[in-house]
Amino acid sequence: MKQIKYSDRISNIEISTLRQLFDKAPKEAINLGLGEIQFQTPDIITDFAIDIIKHKNILYTPNAGLIELQIAIANYYEIPLNGNVCVTSGAEEAIFASLFSYINKGDEVLIANPTYLAYKTIIEMLDGITVEFNLNPNSDFALDYIDFENKISSKTKILLLNNPSNPTGRCFSEKEVDFMISKCEEHNVLIIVDEIYRELYIRSRPSSLLNYQGKIIVISGISKSHSMSGWRIGWAMSNDPYLIKPIITSHQYICTCAPFISQKAAIIALSEKGMEAQNRIREELTKNREYVIQQLKPLQTEIHILENTSSPYLFIKVNVEVMNLVNTLVKNGLIIIPGLSFGSNGKHWIRLNYGINKKKLAKGLHIFKKYIKLLNR
Amino acid sequence: MKQIKYSDRISNIEISTLRQLFDKAPKEAINLGLGEIQFQTPDIITDFAIDIIKHKNILYTPNAGLIELQIAIANYYEIPLNGNVCVTSGAEEAIFASLFSYINKGDEVLIANPTYLAYKTIIEMLDGITVEFNLNPNSDFALDYIDFENKISSKTKILLLNNPSNPTGRCFSEKEVDFMISKCEEHNVLIIVDEIYRELYIRSRPSSLLNYQGKIIVISGISKSHSMSGWRIGWAMSNDPYLIKPIITSHQYICTCAPFISQKAAIIALSEKGMEAQNRIREELTKNREYVIQQLKPLQTEIHILENTSSPYLFIKVNVEVMNLVNTLVKNGLIIIPGLSFGSNGKHWIRLNYGINKKKLAKGLHIFKKYIKLLNR
Repeated sequence: MKQIKYSDRISNIEISTLRQLFDKAPKEAINLGLGEIQFQTPDIITDFAIDIIKHKNILYTPNAGLIELQIAIANYYEIPLNGNVCVTSGAEEAIFASLFSYINKGDEVLIANPTYLAYKTIIEMLDGITVEFNLNPNSDFALDYIDFENKISSKTKILLLNNPSNPTGRCFSEKEVDFMISKCEEHNVLIIVDEIYRELYIRSRPSSLLNYQGKIIVISGISKSHSMSGWRIGWAMSNDPYLIKPIITSHQYICTCAPFISQKAAIIALSEKGMEAQNRIREELTKNREYVIQQLKPLQTEIHILENTSSPYLFIKVNVEVMNLVNTLVKNGLIIIPGLSFGSNGKHWIRLNYGINKKKLAKGLHIFKKYIKLLNR
Repeated sequence: MKQIKYSDRISNIEISTLRQLFDKAPKEAINLGLGEIQFQTPDIITDFAIDIIKHKNILYTPNAGLIELQIAIANYYEIPLNGNVCVTSGAEEAIFASLFSYINKGDEVLIANPTYLAYKTIIEMLDGITVEFNLNPNSDFALDYIDFENKISSKTKILLLNNPSNPTGRCFSEKEVDFMISKCEEHNVLIIVDEIYRELYIRSRPSSLLNYQGKIIVISGISKSHSMSGWRIGWAMSNDPYLIKPIITSHQYICTCAPFISQKAAIIALSEKGMEAQNRIREELTKNREYVIQQLKPLQTEIHILENTSSPYLFIKVNVEVMNLVNTLVKNGLIIIPGLSFGSNGKHWIRLNYGINKKKLAKGLHIFKKYIKLLNR
């Protein structure tokens, strides 16, 4: 009997390097490899969610999300609400639905090298062509202007950014943003920018790209900012409702609406008190960061930590063969991610997530220090 | 300045007839048009969800869902778990991800006329071609065997069923199922069957298609069975893990995972006590049904109610122009859905949902009776 064939869009997708790594790890391994802040959801949000559940009417919401939540999101950006917000089941769905709404077969989508590893897969699942532009690993992953100008063309449909960047934890400078926007305007290119890490800044809050003029869709959510990954609330927003309209339609057919309880919780997350709780998460992250940097100080000859501006990642250059290091660590109970997963420019680097409780973090760093020294002998 | 073009897949999608109807209704309108059971979530489930929230660790789950929930789903079907379940953000996402995983451009997908109206849109968004086979409105929407045989061919990739059917509330007979499965085997066609209404039976619980041999994916969830639409938990399951594998991959890139709290709640929903609570929902629906039928008895010359086997819909043939009736009702505060929305074979029919509180139902029926009599003069 013949097997049923998968669709072309899915048949070339391989299990991610990360998943393969995780599968090799012992059960009690410390995971500093996740793309998640593993703190508890703040009390003010869980208390409110409990009240919502007590009312028991947990029904569908409008496709684009509860109006109160749409208002809260618009207020967060200080932009009027006019059909320009779509609440989604996590930022991942906002990315998927946005690309679904704009990519035609053969359209080119510009992404940074390195960047969040799911972008390439989603673009290719949707019949788009990924074109990478370089962030220079030899100058703190600054934009390579010449390369960007060479890669953007009449075939480019979308520039898909991650700002602050996963994996580097850096933001584009104002000069870099201005340059990219002007090139996109010149070539009539849509900018989609994933700002999921925006609230996890170290010193000052980076500006949202919604403050710029241009054809721009911003994607964000509360998974990272409020340590609420399991709640699944994200959104897509623009100054221009025309740009959000097809995303609302796609979203309706992808999964109807985001979960009700989580949407209610998100309203509180974005309130003044919710943002105070968010501040405490940011402070905890900053403390963890200082702890890690202090712990890794003795390794000055073995590693170089990229100076960045946002939690929860440290991007670290190592002077040993990265896959050997990563495999050795995994076998010995520590998961970290090789920079190569995010693009070839990350090949000498690793990504370490310190958004985890202090005890586990200490244990993980202990393993890291031990094996990086061993491999450096 | 040029506008950015939407993707072809989205640019031809129009706002659904239903949405347009809802938009015309006065704010206080009684809505017997929704595809939702508007009862409260059972106490046993909300109590458990509150405990989960109190633990505050509300994080990502495995892409395919919490293992405990996967086990609960496998147990529900009495089928061993072996990578053959994918938990999704509602059954809608299971439908989307399944079609995304199998349709290539130009593949034909067979759907019933009438059937759930989103199927056609999703198929066409994914570059598939919808081919409708007839359910005969003159013989209680029984399968037209000859038409089915004429429509299935080497170009058919998928048969997409809804069993029990939305909008008719009928199940396919065993003879009809056997016939369709044998034709699908003959033409190497994948069967995807949406069984979201399976637990809302009136007299006896219909068999799941997972009990049959064949290349079959079953889609279901707890939105209808447990009146938990806002929780967003659905799933795709098969006897064959090969058929579910691409759905797990798609789902990962569509929205990472289903919401954590809802996944935990779903484990309780599928437990013995959860199914007892489900029974009470079913009984409440059956009472509402009897009430509606009794209320509509005096209209024997004006309407004909289709004999069916599942809640929450009554499919009703009317002897007046349907769009005129529907528009008149909407203007006067009652939303019902024209059968035409589900396919041309529904053109003389309307769909009425009685899964709503008794007071609203009584008010809605009052409006319905008044205007159907008026229009019949």
